[in-house]
Amino acid sequence: MSLTPHDTARILVEALPYIRQWAGKSVVVKLGGAAIDRDSDLALAQDVLLLRSVGVRCVLVHGGGPQVDAMLRRVGKEPEFKDGLRVTDAETLEIVRMVLVGKINRDLVATINGQAGDHPVAVGVSGEDAGLLTVTPRDPALGFVGDVTAVRAELLHRLLDDGLTPVVSTVGANPDGQPFNVNADEAARAIAVAMEAEKIVYLTAVPGLLEDPRDESTLVQRLTSTDLRGRLSHESIGKGMIPKLRACADAVDQGVGFAHIIDGRVHHSLLIELLTDHGVGTMVTRDAA
Amino acid sequence: MSLTPHDTARILVEALPYIRQWAGKSVVVKLGGAAIDRDSDLALAQDVLLLRSVGVRCVLVHGGGPQVDAMLRRVGKEPEFKDGLRVTDAETLEIVRMVLVGKINRDLVATINGQAGDHPVAVGVSGEDAGLLTVTPRDPALGFVGDVTAVRAELLHRLLDDGLTPVVSTVGANPDGQPFNVNADEAARAIAVAMEAEKIVYLTAVPGLLEDPRDESTLVQRLTSTDLRGRLSHESIGKGMIPKLRACADAVDQGVGFAHIIDGRVHHSLLIELLTDHGVGTMVTRDAA
Amino acid sequence: MSLTPHDTARILVEALPYIRQWAGKSVVVKLGGAAIDRDSDLALAQDVLLLRSVGVRCVLVHGGGPQVDAMLRRVGKEPEFKDGLRVTDAETLEIVRMVLVGKINRDLVATINGQAGDHPVAVGVSGEDAGLLTVTPRDPALGFVGDVTAVRAELLHRLLDDGLTPVVSTVGANPDGQPFNVNADEAARAIAVAMEAEKIVYLTAVPGLLEDPRDESTLVQRLTSTDLRGRLSHESIGKGMIPKLRACADAVDQGVGFAHIIDGRVHHSLLIELLTDHGVGTMVTRDAA
Amino acid sequence: MSLTPHDTARILVEALPYIRQWAGKSVVVKLGGAAIDRDSDLALAQDVLLLRSVGVRCVLVHGGGPQVDAMLRRVGKEPEFKDGLRVTDAETLEIVRMVLVGKINRDLVATINGQAGDHPVAVGVSGEDAGLLTVTPRDPALGFVGDVTAVRAELLHRLLDDGLTPVVSTVGANPDGQPFNVNADEAARAIAVAMEAEKIVYLTAVPGLLEDPRDESTLVQRLTSTDLRGRLSHESIGKGMIPKLRACADAVDQGVGFAHIIDGRVHHSLLIELLTDHGVGTMVTRDAA
Amino acid sequence: MSLTPHDTARILVEALPYIRQWAGKSVVVKLGGAAIDRDSDLALAQDVLLLRSVGVRCVLVHGGGPQVDAMLRRVGKEPEFKDGLRVTDAETLEIVRMVLVGKINRDLVATINGQAGDHPVAVGVSGEDAGLLTVTPRDPALGFVGDVTAVRAELLHRLLDDGLTPVVSTVGANPDGQPFNVNADEAARAIAVAMEAEKIVYLTAVPGLLEDPRDESTLVQRLTSTDLRGRLSHESIGKGMIPKLRACADAVDQGVGFAHIIDGRVHHSLLIELLTDHGVGTMVTRDAA
Amino acid sequence: MSLTPHDTARILVEALPYIRQWAGKSVVVKLGGAAIDRDSDLALAQDVLLLRSVGVRCVLVHGGGPQVDAMLRRVGKEPEFKDGLRVTDAETLEIVRMVLVGKINRDLVATINGQAGDHPVAVGVSGEDAGLLTVTPRDPALGFVGDVTAVRAELLHRLLDDGLTPVVSTVGANPDGQPFNVNADEAARAIAVAMEAEKIVYLTAVPGLLEDPRDESTLVQRLTSTDLRGRLSHESIGKGMIPKLRACADAVDQGVGFAHIIDGRVHHSLLIELLTDHGVGTMVTRDAA
Repeated sequence: MSLTPHDTARILVEALPYIRQWAGKSVVVKLGGAAIDRDSDLALAQDVLLLRSVGVRCVLVHGGGPQVDAMLRRVGKEPEFKDGLRVTDAETLEIVRMVLVGKINRDLVATINGQAGDHPVAVGVSGEDAGLLTVTPRDPALGFVGDVTAVRAELLHRLLDDGLTPVVSTVGANPDGQPFNVNADEAARAIAVAMEAEKIVYLTAVPGLLEDPRDESTLVQRLTSTDLRGRLSHESIGKGMIPKLRACADAVDQGVGFAHIIDGRVHHSLLIELLTDHGVGTMVTRDAA
Repeated sequence: MSLTPHDTARILVEALPYIRQWAGKSVVVKLGGAAIDRDSDLALAQDVLLLRSVGVRCVLVHGGGPQVDAMLRRVGKEPEFKDGLRVTDAETLEIVRMVLVGKINRDLVATINGQAGDHPVAVGVSGEDAGLLTVTPRDPALGFVGDVTAVRAELLHRLLDDGLTPVVSTVGANPDGQPFNVNADEAARAIAVAMEAEKIVYLTAVPGLLEDPRDESTLVQRLTSTDLRGRLSHESIGKGMIPKLRACADAVDQGVGFAHIIDGRVHHSLLIELLTDHGVGTMVTRDAA
Repeated sequence: MSLTPHDTARILVEALPYIRQWAGKSVVVKLGGAAIDRDSDLALAQDVLLLRSVGVRCVLVHGGGPQVDAMLRRVGKEPEFKDGLRVTDAETLEIVRMVLVGKINRDLVATINGQAGDHPVAVGVSGEDAGLLTVTPRDPALGFVGDVTAVRAELLHRLLDDGLTPVVSTVGANPDGQPFNVNADEAARAIAVAMEAEKIVYLTAVPGLLEDPRDESTLVQRLTSTDLRGRLSHESIGKGMIPKLRACADAVDQGVGFAHIIDGRVHHSLLIELLTDHGVGTMVTRDAA
Repeated sequence: MSLTPHDTARILVEALPYIRQWAGKSVVVKLGGAAIDRDSDLALAQDVLLLRSVGVRCVLVHGGGPQVDAMLRRVGKEPEFKDGLRVTDAETLEIVRMVLVGKINRDLVATINGQAGDHPVAVGVSGEDAGLLTVTPRDPALGFVGDVTAVRAELLHRLLDDGLTPVVSTVGANPDGQPFNVNADEAARAIAVAMEAEKIVYLTAVPGLLEDPRDESTLVQRLTSTDLRGRLSHESIGKGMIPKLRACADAVDQGVGFAHIIDGRVHHSLLIELLTDHGVGTMVTRDAA
Repeated sequence: MSLTPHDTARILVEALPYIRQWAGKSVVVKLGGAAIDRDSDLALAQDVLLLRSVGVRCVLVHGGGPQVDAMLRRVGKEPEFKDGLRVTDAETLEIVRMVLVGKINRDLVATINGQAGDHPVAVGVSGEDAGLLTVTPRDPALGFVGDVTAVRAELLHRLLDDGLTPVVSTVGANPDGQPFNVNADEAARAIAVAMEAEKIVYLTAVPGLLEDPRDESTLVQRLTSTDLRGRLSHESIGKGMIPKLRACADAVDQGVGFAHIIDGRVHHSLLIELLTDHGVGTMVTRDAA
Repeated sequence: MSLTPHDTARILVEALPYIRQWAGKSVVVKLGGAAIDRDSDLALAQDVLLLRSVGVRCVLVHGGGPQVDAMLRRVGKEPEFKDGLRVTDAETLEIVRMVLVGKINRDLVATINGQAGDHPVAVGVSGEDAGLLTVTPRDPALGFVGDVTAVRAELLHRLLDDGLTPVVSTVGANPDGQPFNVNADEAARAIAVAMEAEKIVYLTAVPGLLEDPRDESTLVQRLTSTDLRGRLSHESIGKGMIPKLRACADAVDQGVGFAHIIDGRVHHSLLIELLTDHGVGTMVTRDAA
């Protein structure tokens, strides 16, 4: 389809009220390992830069389970899980850090900066840096797996104030500097809460929360955190979705304005969610007062 | 035509390089009295707010010859001109000020603020305020008509720094506080030069500079200030265009990056000029070094 | 009388404690249309500049009923009132704005700047600018007459911080940008309260509140807001004074330190009130705690 | 003589152009020991506070020869001079510091603060503090007598920026922290030059430079630094005046706008010099360009 | 003993946790007149500069009883006391100021600046300066002896923020600017409380609080303010110690973290107390919560 | 050997002039992969924290050749070199980034933060972040190996201003965001020059520049950059040392005050070099002017 200059102008003008609404607000975007491919990364990079140019304060948070598994196998080590959580011995932790901080984070930074022209703005940050994510061990049987107990949110705000865009790897550290693997969905929630973010957006490989996971037409477009908690025990909900859904409910109950689960495979879904009135995926809100 | 969310996202993304280019730059927009009607004002207000939201520092400068004529006649006084300039006695000056500062400026401010929602940003300013435009009398035979000798540009920059959008009426004052009528095309040029603006845009009721004024297909899309000066004596150029064209040539020679004459009757022409690659009207550039 | 240099020095020194008392404090000065003539404007301009030079933060607020009436008649329209309030249709509103913003405000700005030498400091501001005065309609029968519901006082404080002196026209706007005529006595009170001003001074064409309006020797020099409210229903008080008196009582009850009604016809009465111990006119104070 | 409120207002208004001229400018005032008595100190304190309240940045610099002589004699030591300069051994230096820093400076600070009401602003500073006056020894035969080689003027500007009024004792130090006695006229000149002051004023016990020192009617009201240097060798000029006169010529040649010698015994002579058009004493200007 | 470079490095590294603990904290150090000699002053100057270079905000406060006595006798006046407090007539007050401000303070400033190389940082301040110490008379029979009623602590913090080190003489003033002699132990306590200091350290000529004043092995190393108050009436405690001990108890009860009495005769005892784990002298703490 | 508190105090005091000299200065420290072991890292972390606490602005820059080789072999790929430079295909580049950014950088950050207690300060940064290191390809035959053409030094200064300690991995990017492997010695030099650092220190596994590489007693303690360039062609110099030595000569010629090659195996050698007068290793200075 060919668009005229006037279409362009009209569309830009229609985005204006949304731009006004989000300018100056913080938005935490969580990317799942599974949703990441080169083309959607490119589209995401463009979205983040565009949102930044209209004043939205985006922070990217990423995990990377599949890529960690691949690297572990490449060095001859079989991934091991317990109740869905990665058993993380010292050697695994080293691979986790290399893959998250040294590969996935780097690729995201490179993709954004490659789109940014003369003014590269993306900066990789790990939860270990300057105490960004303080953690406590979860369970001795899991090894170096930790829960976030504190977030030094001003580090991220200062980078944003300087016009930079932080890309956060979810490795944390305890007060002795010992690193720990952290669940990325949980870390993103903790960061959004500590930053007093207006939105947290989970980019996933599904369209959102489905009444019937096999039928995309049963998408739940909007529900409250209480409704959502009520559904968490339903058997229709896939195991993989539960941590994300719980994180959504927790986020809004702890002060984040809105939590979203949207389809990261659809290019520019982040932009569409924020700057048009075509909501995509599932939005979780607080209960009406 | 119906646009999908993905069209919207694509268009927003395509505007990104332009947004990057203009963010933080100052742009002076001159509105002619003739080009002003309610609908194009609304579209212009939206353009200015959108440009502001992506970091462009817009200043509006307006004249208002036709409206002054109408008011003069309403109070029973016939407008009088000499060599195309308004003869301005004390009574005329009073009407000029009332119309420019008390009516046209007010209507522009109201239109912008009405589009701005909870955060009205437009502020009316007259050249008399705090010495914004210092003038010297041009010719005793013209009465209170002055030439701008100094612009206190930091007043406008301070308003822009505070997130406000100045709308400037082109009444100046001499050091005794005596007001003078000032040619608006000239005043806009002086303001753009003093602000070290990147662009000055004249919104007019014509498509731009035409080789043959009766044939819009002869539009000159781009020329240098030297070329432009060469054409100023051609008889094909209408009288009314000469001050604007000379102001364009002067502006770029005095440091403004680009000067434009575009059609203010085409809605969103300002936005199209700045944020798409569809140039509209005539662009004047410096001579190649 | 001829004064020696030592008289001069002595007088300056005697003003010192008052200067100390008022430096850094905000004072809102309301000028009535009736009190305005060229000479008292000149004296007032000098007073405001002098007070500014010793650190007093003056804001001028003006109305202009008589001048509006004159202009209405000049364009062939008879002024119309209901219960003392101007019935303001769209055409009247346009004239009100032209006279207040485009004439009276301008003349005050020009007078102050003409006295200020190389550093003109007066800046005209309308209540419509950047949401300075938000209003709500009072009564459909009155047309575009509004009551102030919010004052964006930081705009005035920022101008004062920059060393500028705001002169405010009392036209407000609703959130859609629609302008409304506002009672100037009321607007001045709302501005003083929002600015947390130390003083509000009404310059009028009477010596102050008189026990017997025909006998200037019955001036009430000082009373509390409660006393004042008690007198508002007395028949001895002229209709025109009631809004000013009520505004004085409201101002001090809402946090302004002192409210004054003084004679604007006496040159330098503002300076005398602030910098000498010769109180002039009537001072309204809070009730003793 | 009894002054009316209107006289007061008129005088304040007449001071306005001078206030405008001096606001924000630095003025260094040197007090000679001989000119200091209780009443003129009180008047001077008032002058300094008044000038401060209108934005003049006053720094006081004092010496105190007679008081040092008195204290030396009180502890049984005869003052000793060589070519008009005090021979300063270690014991003398100790007395000099005690008298200048511990007595004269203190008395000035107390007098100003006693006049300043709730906001005492005077702060005593010695040239030894934080390297304010760096000195080099003048002549081994004089002992601890030094010449100023550097002034850390930003210390004084920072105090003034904080609203404080520095009172400077002219004891300096070499880089080892060893204190030295410094000629106060010279130190005042060095401070004025380093501060880029607009004026230096020497308060003395004479009316100014006299053609005939026995006839006050022969006062030279104004001369250039070149004229002044031409007169320095005239025998009519008293020994005591030569350092002051040379300091005046040096000050203006090194960038200070104006240097004055005025009569400190006349109360408020500082105020009269700055805020009225009655020049007092002798003014030294640069040669016309 | 000869130390290797590695010893040096090790010692520096061992000081690191203490440096971290004290960086950015305020510490008030009171010097008694009796403890002051040239060598311990030199060591103290080095300690203060070293602590400053690692970010500790030191303020020195000094008295000077013995030196005042000496000067009084030198001018032929016998010191007079009543209940341990100096009877201070006008003449005595003048000598007190000269000795404290003009001699002891100066010598401390010179000693520190002499050690500070190219960047002298010590600045003498008297309690009279800009209202640092406001006092009220204690007892008519004592003359000009005052109690501190207010401390303008921001003056000291501003000097510290500018990288300067204040040395405070304990002369205060009442609101009329009249100076008063103030007990230095008490003044130091008031300053520490007003500054929200972390520590107050009294440098004395004794090892600390001794169970048996004749036996240094009975040093009390640590006690709470309540314990300390319980001991104040014991006859074993010397008269001279009581004001210091009471000031210690008051200081910690009013918010200062720790109060110390340490031996000023031991060189570098301040540094040892702050940067090693060898506590010296007596430490007073708050009662455990 | 047992040290008394007084030894400790003495050593701290002796470090004072060095602390004064280096406070506020930037020092770039390059760690070679070979020099890194756990214990020397711990000592280095302490040194960096101690230097930071006295105001030295340290930036760490690291390479990691041996660790990259090990990881390459672990995934079954043989390291390949050409003229001493690593041939870097896409797969190698990925391993380089993982090892440098995801492992070595992380371990350094963890070690420093583990020593820093409650206030972790180390932050990992890669040259790819926000355009820190812009590179251009060196030679197509080497693949993704780049030369630094620009350093965005203000990013590092801003982190230092915020009290953070940057640890830099030497991966750069071209303007398209494509990462490149960069020689760490060269990158450290470019960073030091761009930061206008006072010192660059190469921590190596040798004692410094030796006249005879087999005899440590032939250490060259100090030489100028011209002398150093003269020796670069001598056969006695090991291949591995040449890039470091050339970088030292370039650094001082381009404005860095001093370049050092010191033995990273000796614990606290950095601290000894900066804070004692025991120079260690080889110092390169500019030629005398």
